[in-house]
Amino acid sequence: MKIGILTGGGDCPGLNAVIRGVVKTACKKYNWDCLGIESGFEGLILEGHTRELNPYRIRGILPIGGTILWSSNKGDPFNYPQEENGKVVKKDLSGRAMEKFKDLGLNALIVVGGDGTMTIANKFYKMGMPVIGVPKTIDNDLMSTDLTFGFSTAVETATYALDKLHTTAASHKRVIVVELMGRYVGWIALHSGISGGADCILIPEILFDIDKVCEHIKGRVKQGSSFSIVVVSEGAKPLGGSVTALGLDKSSGVERLGGIGEKVAKWIEGKVDVDVRTTVLGHIQRGGGPNSFDRILSTRFGYEAVELIKEGRFGRMVCLKGQDIESVTLDDAIAKQKAIDPDGSIVKTAEAIGICMGR
Amino acid sequence: MKIGILTGGGDCPGLNAVIRGVVKTACKKYNWDCLGIESGFEGLILEGHTRELNPYRIRGILPIGGTILWSSNKGDPFNYPQEENGKVVKKDLSGRAMEKFKDLGLNALIVVGGDGTMTIANKFYKMGMPVIGVPKTIDNDLMSTDLTFGFSTAVETATYALDKLHTTAASHKRVIVVELMGRYVGWIALHSGISGGADCILIPEILFDIDKVCEHIKGRVKQGSSFSIVVVSEGAKPLGGSVTALGLDKSSGVERLGGIGEKVAKWIEGKVDVDVRTTVLGHIQRGGGPNSFDRILSTRFGYEAVELIKEGRFGRMVCLKGQDIESVTLDDAIAKQKAIDPDGSIVKTAEAIGICMGR
Amino acid sequence: MKIGILTGGGDCPGLNAVIRGVVKTACKKYNWDCLGIESGFEGLILEGHTRELNPYRIRGILPIGGTILWSSNKGDPFNYPQEENGKVVKKDLSGRAMEKFKDLGLNALIVVGGDGTMTIANKFYKMGMPVIGVPKTIDNDLMSTDLTFGFSTAVETATYALDKLHTTAASHKRVIVVELMGRYVGWIALHSGISGGADCILIPEILFDIDKVCEHIKGRVKQGSSFSIVVVSEGAKPLGGSVTALGLDKSSGVERLGGIGEKVAKWIEGKVDVDVRTTVLGHIQRGGGPNSFDRILSTRFGYEAVELIKEGRFGRMVCLKGQDIESVTLDDAIAKQKAIDPDGSIVKTAEAIGICMGR
Amino acid sequence: MKIGILTGGGDCPGLNAVIRGVVKTACKKYNWDCLGIESGFEGLILEGHTRELNPYRIRGILPIGGTILWSSNKGDPFNYPQEENGKVVKKDLSGRAMEKFKDLGLNALIVVGGDGTMTIANKFYKMGMPVIGVPKTIDNDLMSTDLTFGFSTAVETATYALDKLHTTAASHKRVIVVELMGRYVGWIALHSGISGGADCILIPEILFDIDKVCEHIKGRVKQGSSFSIVVVSEGAKPLGGSVTALGLDKSSGVERLGGIGEKVAKWIEGKVDVDVRTTVLGHIQRGGGPNSFDRILSTRFGYEAVELIKEGRFGRMVCLKGQDIESVTLDDAIAKQKAIDPDGSIVKTAEAIGICMGR
Repeated sequence: MKIGILTGGGDCPGLNAVIRGVVKTACKKYNWDCLGIESGFEGLILEGHTRELNPYRIRGILPIGGTILWSSNKGDPFNYPQEENGKVVKKDLSGRAMEKFKDLGLNALIVVGGDGTMTIANKFYKMGMPVIGVPKTIDNDLMSTDLTFGFSTAVETATYALDKLHTTAASHKRVIVVELMGRYVGWIALHSGISGGADCILIPEILFDIDKVCEHIKGRVKQGSSFSIVVVSEGAKPLGGSVTALGLDKSSGVERLGGIGEKVAKWIEGKVDVDVRTTVLGHIQRGGGPNSFDRILSTRFGYEAVELIKEGRFGRMVCLKGQDIESVTLDDAIAKQKAIDPDGSIVKTAEAIGICMGR
Repeated sequence: MKIGILTGGGDCPGLNAVIRGVVKTACKKYNWDCLGIESGFEGLILEGHTRELNPYRIRGILPIGGTILWSSNKGDPFNYPQEENGKVVKKDLSGRAMEKFKDLGLNALIVVGGDGTMTIANKFYKMGMPVIGVPKTIDNDLMSTDLTFGFSTAVETATYALDKLHTTAASHKRVIVVELMGRYVGWIALHSGISGGADCILIPEILFDIDKVCEHIKGRVKQGSSFSIVVVSEGAKPLGGSVTALGLDKSSGVERLGGIGEKVAKWIEGKVDVDVRTTVLGHIQRGGGPNSFDRILSTRFGYEAVELIKEGRFGRMVCLKGQDIESVTLDDAIAKQKAIDPDGSIVKTAEAIGICMGR
Repeated sequence: MKIGILTGGGDCPGLNAVIRGVVKTACKKYNWDCLGIESGFEGLILEGHTRELNPYRIRGILPIGGTILWSSNKGDPFNYPQEENGKVVKKDLSGRAMEKFKDLGLNALIVVGGDGTMTIANKFYKMGMPVIGVPKTIDNDLMSTDLTFGFSTAVETATYALDKLHTTAASHKRVIVVELMGRYVGWIALHSGISGGADCILIPEILFDIDKVCEHIKGRVKQGSSFSIVVVSEGAKPLGGSVTALGLDKSSGVERLGGIGEKVAKWIEGKVDVDVRTTVLGHIQRGGGPNSFDRILSTRFGYEAVELIKEGRFGRMVCLKGQDIESVTLDDAIAKQKAIDPDGSIVKTAEAIGICMGR
Repeated sequence: MKIGILTGGGDCPGLNAVIRGVVKTACKKYNWDCLGIESGFEGLILEGHTRELNPYRIRGILPIGGTILWSSNKGDPFNYPQEENGKVVKKDLSGRAMEKFKDLGLNALIVVGGDGTMTIANKFYKMGMPVIGVPKTIDNDLMSTDLTFGFSTAVETATYALDKLHTTAASHKRVIVVELMGRYVGWIALHSGISGGADCILIPEILFDIDKVCEHIKGRVKQGSSFSIVVVSEGAKPLGGSVTALGLDKSSGVERLGGIGEKVAKWIEGKVDVDVRTTVLGHIQRGGGPNSFDRILSTRFGYEAVELIKEGRFGRMVCLKGQDIESVTLDDAIAKQKAIDPDGSIVKTAEAIGICMGR
């Protein structure tokens, strides 16, 4: 028995812990062989992108961030960029990947990735490849699992930053706007904002009214709190009325990601008599080793992925439900994005303790 | 409307975050008054042990460990130590506490504590006091909540220690035995052990066979891993046969807590030709500020406790179920201790990746 | 005997530790009174900006970042902004400050700040105020002290960020450009770069040749290291020839601070076939509590400042020489900025271990 | 040109950073070959204990604790334990080591270690081996260098522990006694104690009077501080009169190390009406990756060691003087232990801010 494993999409704390969990379970419990596929699905297209894995080779990787197998954002075999007559065209090389999978003598493939990677994995599964998915994203935007690994660490990192920004904001009586990651959902911003003691949290799920934000900051000054921390999720969007004022392009979503923090800062500075500074936390949020929660979740996911192979239950993705590890079909896994409920209990808690959610 | 809040039992990261969540919700959302009762239930017996709380007075406490209201391990009003004729006798002063509760003009009392504190809270509830419980313990041994705040931080702290011990153990090819907290259950040991890459984890729920531990360490040496990390929960107990050999007293449980690490270390040193060192991590595990997970959980618990008061649902304890905050009756809350299932999925995961659980 | 203390300029980890060192020494050793002046020198101009300090009031501030006395960047009494007929004009209010100093009954004033604050302190000293200076800056740019407190913590924070960026850069085979603070000198960048394992470090003291940087990155790719970390000090400047190409304004220095990281990133992306990301670390570098080194240095500075008052040696600034705390005159203290020696031993070390300094 | 490197004695954060500094400088700047000698000087006696080192093989070790070359406390070739007729006898195998040094084709040997290791290195130097020393110890007890790497990280780790213990001590109004490492000198205890806000610090350099300690704790209770943190260096000793009372063995020094914390705790508990707990921090203090200060110092030491080889200045040890890296002869290096001056400026500072030094 020989299984492969690859990591795809943006990297995330805990990837190495999953790899370790898979390799240790496969080798120690079942005495299987393990093959690492490098650079995501690209490793199934390019030559020489595989590496034997065994307990010795994965020593010491549990607390290390990133992925020893590397990742790739470009490696979709169904839509793979190739140079042809000096131009780059997209080609379907999924057949070549299927063939390589067989040539490598693999009996199963564990795919660790986010929604994009799972969609590709599902296509291969439908073509007959015995695939198991492991969900990964710092953004926590997958509907079919309570939590993804990497999210907890990202929140911890963002909280660390907010803690530090608090002392400098307070000393200088400044407003500090902090732009956090999360793509189209506000999980990192909401959780970090609450744990980092933010005064305003702006998330994509609640279109924000910049006037409410400014009023809130003014109210704090009146009560003697001359500083404020404003957390802005990179996907946060202002209410229709504010769009023009902020100078945002209404037409597209993707391009808007990144930059909203700076815009919110300028807007506040224009309306409130206060010093404003902006910090874009950036890639630090996806870097570094996993915290203990993510190490355990990743290890459990890795173990469960191997168990699913053992049971022959392919086309499924492992997931967390409460305190248990379960699994769902890849079809279900990629059906829907998990967004924050604007009327849910966490948002209610935030507003109850006086955090302005921009509405 | 005026509510009281007290913290009882051993301290734990997140107590201040609960206090803050309660005070902010009560003051900002409902415009209620808040009174802090100092030193646990003792504050309802002694004079001058109360303090007005408002958003201003709880500024900056979110990331701070411990409890600004202090705690006490001796403060059971139903069994309160009093000097009488030069001797200390236990008296039932619950009547005095009931009276004081009324004199203070309180409409409700939020009690933050572990099983001992909840048992007292329940007695007062049965006497007519409108009580709400908030579960607290680094040990995570409460059946009626998925997790208690403080546990995640304690696991993080223990993991930090294990990470550090790894490098020195490996450099010197030593065995390091680490005794962790957890009282009669092994949650901290099991979770930290997995996240800290331990080689053996001994917990109270699985009587350990010291020979299996020694064999495992020898096996590692043979495979070229000349060092090992052995995590021992303070409540861990050896199999019947080993008891005499270890020199433990079979009769009692409490006294056994603490000291088992040192005993395991000596046993290993006697059986395996290897340098052994012991570290008893101790009170560091309950100290320090809460991590982001515990800050959020504590804040949500504090919010929910106030909501239960608003709804008049007394005699209940808030709890975590999956990702939701719910509540149970205090009767249910204290009915049963939550122990690790020796055949559950986390233990299975540990054993699958090659960790020796002493059996 | 009654002494005042104020903190001026940008905040910095360790300010509270200095305040604590001063107050504890003054109150416990000499039984003096202490008065906190709020918001830097502004507190000597505005009404009601003072606060009695004693050991009780400074409890718990040792590990806390920022300054409990607040700081201010605008508070130069010799050049103080005032509204007059609807316009803001700068006025010399130093006389008012001198008077207030007397009215408050102060026998001495301890001024904690950077070069700007020390310059003001020196002017007051020349006017007859008994002043003692304590050097503070995360930038470490003061010639007369081996190190300033706050610098070590800032380097630690930047190193933390670089460690995290390493794992994501390596996983994605990216170049990550990190812009760090430091104003006109490269101390934070050079020290963090070495401790964070950077591949290139660009500092103001060495005009950089962007082609050398690109060559270095290409060389790494050839050797199998497909990622690189490029640390850029906010004050770094390209060689003459590169200025136009980078689109920088040659005329001024100040405006150039901030933004150079983004420019370096674009330049690299244009010349090397590699993904590039930028992170501007920003205010996190001056936030948060001090590390142990800065706590000790701050405490020692605070103690020594009080000793200088005791000895009546005014007009001096405390400083670190080797392992000893000494003092220099304020005249000497502000005479010269401390820049990195481009041919000094730390730069040589960096280049010897293969770090590209852009030349 | 081919150079060897070994690490001896107790491990310490920064060893890997020295190895990296040596290998990168030797390979990149001078194009020399590097050989790692495993397990300290034992690697010059046993077979097969060497390993080629090059920039590729030392990738990623900068932030990792311990030593990739392993260490050994038993490996003194001049006094090497050997089994002979069933008994272990000590033999002088230095000749065999000298021969092996030649057989390996080495032109120089860099020895990283503490005073014990430097003494051995010096003996080999006198026998004609071209040796360079690099000082290493978390204890900071070497007279000829201002600081050793590892010390700063150990102080940081101990401070982290003290910060955590503070919150639990304060919440429970307890005294917590913390035993820290440091062998015969109190550097770790004194520095950590000041940075961790300890109330008492007991060091070997000042024989302590336990009554003074108890008075101090009582004094704190009277002033409303019902908790105290007592830092005890493992080598701390009570005043003559107290020895018997404490039940310590007067005869020897070594055996006394470890255990003094527990004794101090019992003594306090007997004299002051207060709850006391003890924490022995143990091996955590020498584990884990180096902080930024130690990474830089280690890298500079590694670089300078290679430069000394280049210049042919053997028999010397690199050292830190102020901000500069210099060197001394091995003879001078091992002449004297560096103890804390009981009347020096750091102790004075500690006492001025109200810390009880036990006198």
